[in-house]
Amino acid sequence: MAPKAKADALQQKSPAEFFAENKNIAGFDNPGKCLYTTVRELVENALDAAESISELPHIEITIEEVSKARLNRIRGVEHHDRLDEQLYQDFESEEAKKKRLAKEAKDKEKLQKLIDKHGEGAAPVEAERKKMAAAAKAAGGAMRGNLFYRVTVKDNGAGMPHRDIPNMLGRVLSGTKYGVKQTRGKFGLGAKMALIWSKMTTGLPFEIVSARPGAANKSHYVLDIDIHRNEPNVHKEETLPNPGGWHGSELGLTIEGNWSHYRSYIVRYLRQIAVITPYAAFTFAYKAEEEKNSLRINFRRRTDVMPPPPRATKHHPSSVDLELVKRLLKATEAKSLTVFLRKEFDCVSAALAERLVDEMQMGVEGDMSPRNLTDKQVVRLHQLLHEVRFDDPRGDHLSPAGEYNLRLGVMKEVHPDLIATHQGDVKVFEGHAFIVEAAVSVGGRDVKSGINSYRFANRIPLLFEQGSDVITKTAQKRINWAAYKINQAADKVGVFVSIVSTKIPFKGAGKEYIGDDVEEMVAAVKAAIQACCVQLKTKIVRAIAAREQKLRKKNLTKCIPDAANAIFSVLERMAKREAGEGEEDPDDGGPGGAEDGAGGAKRRRLAPPPVRDDKGLLPAVARRELTAATLAARLTEYVERIDTDMALEYQVQQGLAAGIAKEPLYLMPLSSRHSHGPELHANTCVVRLLSGYT
Amino acid sequence: MAPKAKADALQQKSPAEFFAENKNIAGFDNPGKCLYTTVRELVENALDAAESISELPHIEITIEEVSKARLNRIRGVEHHDRLDEQLYQDFESEEAKKKRLAKEAKDKEKLQKLIDKHGEGAAPVEAERKKMAAAAKAAGGAMRGNLFYRVTVKDNGAGMPHRDIPNMLGRVLSGTKYGVKQTRGKFGLGAKMALIWSKMTTGLPFEIVSARPGAANKSHYVLDIDIHRNEPNVHKEETLPNPGGWHGSELGLTIEGNWSHYRSYIVRYLRQIAVITPYAAFTFAYKAEEEKNSLRINFRRRTDVMPPPPRATKHHPSSVDLELVKRLLKATEAKSLTVFLRKEFDCVSAALAERLVDEMQMGVEGDMSPRNLTDKQVVRLHQLLHEVRFDDPRGDHLSPAGEYNLRLGVMKEVHPDLIATHQGDVKVFEGHAFIVEAAVSVGGRDVKSGINSYRFANRIPLLFEQGSDVITKTAQKRINWAAYKINQAADKVGVFVSIVSTKIPFKGAGKEYIGDDVEEMVAAVKAAIQACCVQLKTKIVRAIAAREQKLRKKNLTKCIPDAANAIFSVLERMAKREAGEGEEDPDDGGPGGAEDGAGGAKRRRLAPPPVRDDKGLLPAVARRELTAATLAARLTEYVERIDTDMALEYQVQQGLAAGIAKEPLYLMPLSSRHSHGPELHANTCVVRLLSGYT
Repeated sequence: MAPKAKADALQQKSPAEFFAENKNIAGFDNPGKCLYTTVRELVENALDAAESISELPHIEITIEEVSKARLNRIRGVEHHDRLDEQLYQDFESEEAKKKRLAKEAKDKEKLQKLIDKHGEGAAPVEAERKKMAAAAKAAGGAMRGNLFYRVTVKDNGAGMPHRDIPNMLGRVLSGTKYGVKQTRGKFGLGAKMALIWSKMTTGLPFEIVSARPGAANKSHYVLDIDIHRNEPNVHKEETLPNPGGWHGSELGLTIEGNWSHYRSYIVRYLRQIAVITPYAAFTFAYKAEEEKNSLRINFRRRTDVMPPPPRATKHHPSSVDLELVKRLLKATEAKSLTVFLRKEFDCVSAALAERLVDEMQMGVEGDMSPRNLTDKQVVRLHQLLHEVRFDDPRGDHLSPAGEYNLRLGVMKEVHPDLIATHQGDVKVFEGHAFIVEAAVSVGGRDVKSGINSYRFANRIPLLFEQGSDVITKTAQKRINWAAYKINQAADKVGVFVSIVSTKIPFKGAGKEYIGDDVEEMVAAVKAAIQACCVQLKTKIVRAIAAREQKLRKKNLTKCIPDAANAIFSVLERMAKREAGEGEEDPDDGGPGGAEDGAGGAKRRRLAPPPVRDDKGLLPAVARRELTAATLAARLTEYVERIDTDMALEYQVQQGLAAGIAKEPLYLMPLSSRHSHGPELHANTCVVRLLSGYT
Repeated sequence: MAPKAKADALQQKSPAEFFAENKNIAGFDNPGKCLYTTVRELVENALDAAESISELPHIEITIEEVSKARLNRIRGVEHHDRLDEQLYQDFESEEAKKKRLAKEAKDKEKLQKLIDKHGEGAAPVEAERKKMAAAAKAAGGAMRGNLFYRVTVKDNGAGMPHRDIPNMLGRVLSGTKYGVKQTRGKFGLGAKMALIWSKMTTGLPFEIVSARPGAANKSHYVLDIDIHRNEPNVHKEETLPNPGGWHGSELGLTIEGNWSHYRSYIVRYLRQIAVITPYAAFTFAYKAEEEKNSLRINFRRRTDVMPPPPRATKHHPSSVDLELVKRLLKATEAKSLTVFLRKEFDCVSAALAERLVDEMQMGVEGDMSPRNLTDKQVVRLHQLLHEVRFDDPRGDHLSPAGEYNLRLGVMKEVHPDLIATHQGDVKVFEGHAFIVEAAVSVGGRDVKSGINSYRFANRIPLLFEQGSDVITKTAQKRINWAAYKINQAADKVGVFVSIVSTKIPFKGAGKEYIGDDVEEMVAAVKAAIQACCVQLKTKIVRAIAAREQKLRKKNLTKCIPDAANAIFSVLERMAKREAGEGEEDPDDGGPGGAEDGAGGAKRRRLAPPPVRDDKGLLPAVARRELTAATLAARLTEYVERIDTDMALEYQVQQGLAAGIAKEPLYLMPLSSRHSHGPELHANTCVVRLLSGYT
């Protein structure tokens, strides 16, 4: 890195140096993103720590704005007045100032012209205003390196062993989560990258307070990292009394960042992690230098049911490479090859181990020590492991969020009109078990029209690079939404997919998205979303039917007054005629004479037959007992009844559709002296009639 | 990694282990991609090696299929017959076989039914066939670990120093390209990742032959890597005579891969690297076990002009972080702070260094040793470097492809109808200079309708993850193509963008795409594409005009026979009347009598006036000198002439538009005894008339 080194001199980098120089690989792209990634890495570590001891997590996150002046005070660098004003970036020469003022005046004039032409508030005026604002911002805000924050995350987790703390936090690629186990972190990078970033920007160290459960003391460390050597550099180490029996960790560091650019991401991240971890409580506080810019959000715990924590498992034989086989053989404590196979691999029984050893041939015996295998025998073993069919891992070591939690989260997040959830079966890729859970929602608050995907991997939300992610791509391109009566463009569709696995095929160490090239995962994601859609389709079809029914009722109801009046006027006239039999209807006869002469007999009406009035309507009309109002009331009643009938029928159908068969459930009399007669079947119960008692 | 380690035991990974476990970060996602990435990493190293000694690169790439049987022979593992057939993945129990056959029969029946219904070749039939083929493939081809390849890449580059070879190839994060310099490789990962992959899959080592220019001996190594220790593991080391004075490197290794899945990517990569490196020759051979599947492609050198190689530069003050400042201070050989500032940083003159030291205050003096700065003074220096305005780096250390090379490449790649190229100015992000070059083409061979982007970074093609790339995103979303008369959906548009920089903000170590979040880069890419579009617009407008002109000519020509006939028939009749003066026109008078009675005098025709026939057309017609054919010939001539005139005018306009002013260029007579009269100006030349000779 030293620029004077000969161009082709060979240099060796420590992993810390490598990641310091290529921060973006770990999600530390720019100051704003660094702030975001720091928060999420610390939060995920905190959740893992609490879950590892089956404690309901309570995480406190604080981001405190640190002005440059304050930072300098902390670092012991006093403020210095500028001596040579012209050196600085924000220095403006007389000429530049003149130019700027001229430009501003011109812009203003242009704006005024636009206002005169289009009127205040018109689109072109607003566009011009926006442009001017952007230019002003670009001119003023381009200077980097002025925004600093102290990030603190406190949990109630397992804490860290006192002597391990320096290595856990001050050494890149060191960690406790490297086993075959579903964990949020995996790379051993997150917290260390935050520390490297703080060292690169503020130079201030990490501050750690930590206590293990039941410990009488808590550890207090102040440390940073020697990037060149990839070694922790301890400034202060002490143990403090822990009278309250507190356990957990509190980590604090000061970094450059950009709250205003990444505020929405940080808040979205916290909202989504609260969605997928409803058994955790989060309190978040942003403390600005000016109180009015501060922000405080609490995400309350919404359930006390914590999914069983994931367990470490063994390597599946089909997932191991040649190198790993060698390492396992070297590290094993097993005395014989058969025991080695059984103990170190998943899905290998004692009997299968025997068969494998027999199949190896090449002079391999089951009771030979694993360390004594020759290189060629190892190659043969590796090859055999890939040729033999093993059972798939069972996946009981995984800890999916659970349909209940997922549904709870979605309900809270988007308040949808409709929701369906599905948990897929355990699937396998390259010997790693994985489970896909999905929820699909339609409608709701704050949801845009179209497909909105929410992605979770090992129960962390993924917010970036969604265009390339397997979940987004599947939701957008591989689901025929129309087949499920969902309008991909117009409906507000939420697609929530959570994948858990001992190995998530992330692209990049930043854990930002899952590649689209693992076929097994593509298929599983698609199947899970489709399963939700099938459930939704039934509901949507029913909802459409209900909406139509409602509409029909509304239309019928609207017609009632007119219909009632019309019927009544007919009845009234009939009643009148019934009353005065011989009286001629004024509409009939009379003025029709001229036509009679021309048109002939065919247009002459027959005398009306006597009305059959079994129900005695006409006398009722005559007596004013039956009026238009009473007719309207009866019609309304009738429309309502149809509605109720259909609703009942609908409920019954829904019950049947949902597979709720009627169960025989009797309150049995205590004695057998009763005799029963016929059964009366109603929709919701069956009544047996008592026919005798002896 | 050992599964029996306590779940929360702290483990330390070597960088080699880290990348072995997270291969996908470096572009080693799956066997097919690994084959692709291995080829490209070796090819890029080879190009860098040749360019570093300004040698026109000649690269030979061979991929040789190695069957499993042959691999086993090489590894000394003989073939073994299966003893326990039921163990294997491809074993099919009687029951499974019965099931499969039943399913196949059923599928066949279904297919037959579809054929009966829709007819052979109909869409549903083909879809069903495809489904069946996919199912058969999935059932048979799912087994991994059977496809192996030997990859060899040979170059004529700088070679490697004998004693450095093990560390250069057998240690992750060690390299020669870590300076501030534009290079293809950067991470010190590529070749080592290929070695790790070979170790994980075949266990076979790297074989290297290398010689420096002018060396009497060449080095021969066989080595692999101890992944756990991140150390080279040398199997064989020797020096061989080098009588021919050859220099360069030849690397060979055997890996698992998948040629058929990634063949198209490998070929596309080679095509594109040939496009952007037209001064290099590439020969590629794929040797399959069966000769008929082999493939051979040569990419010839198309120019001998090699752009000047990039040079290493110094850190720009605005790009350094606190950590780097500390490291530079520690490593410098400068005796005083002012010398340190001038020597270690770009764009810092001696005078500026003095001013900077003065501005630091805090008791800092220009002649104090850089090593004696206190921590606080270092913090102050770092802060100052970010507050002060420095000149932007000049970018003359970069080596862009050049517009000429880019155009050459595009012409060869797509044979476009129209092309425009543009090289942007040197721009800067985070203190790193970068240059964006672009070419936009319209039309051509093998180009799909719509925007096709071709991306290059430090002169390597990027093929993957294009959806998230700054170039694709800019081309797709930030260019208003319609404004340049380009139809974004229907036209065949090729967008070629090449970015060179001392730091390319790649996302991930796989060098697959450039993130979309560096504003300076977004702006520069947009500007470069737009500059091409502006050029194209003129051409397109002209092409449209030319097309319209051609169309008009075609239409006019089409009308000529009819027009000639019509005119001639008129002339003929006129000539006849002229000949027999008193003869009455048969159309006139006679049958009009009845109407005369009704309509009156206004409809009566006047006697035709005598024809003015100045050109003597009518006699010519009468003499049969002017016929329809001669008329047609004259009209054709006229249409042609208009066309020629317009073409001339068009060319002149084009010349003027392109800024080609007419230069006075005379063949001067040797003596001055000539006198010249007036000048005759034509479109393309000026003629001076000779008026006298003394």
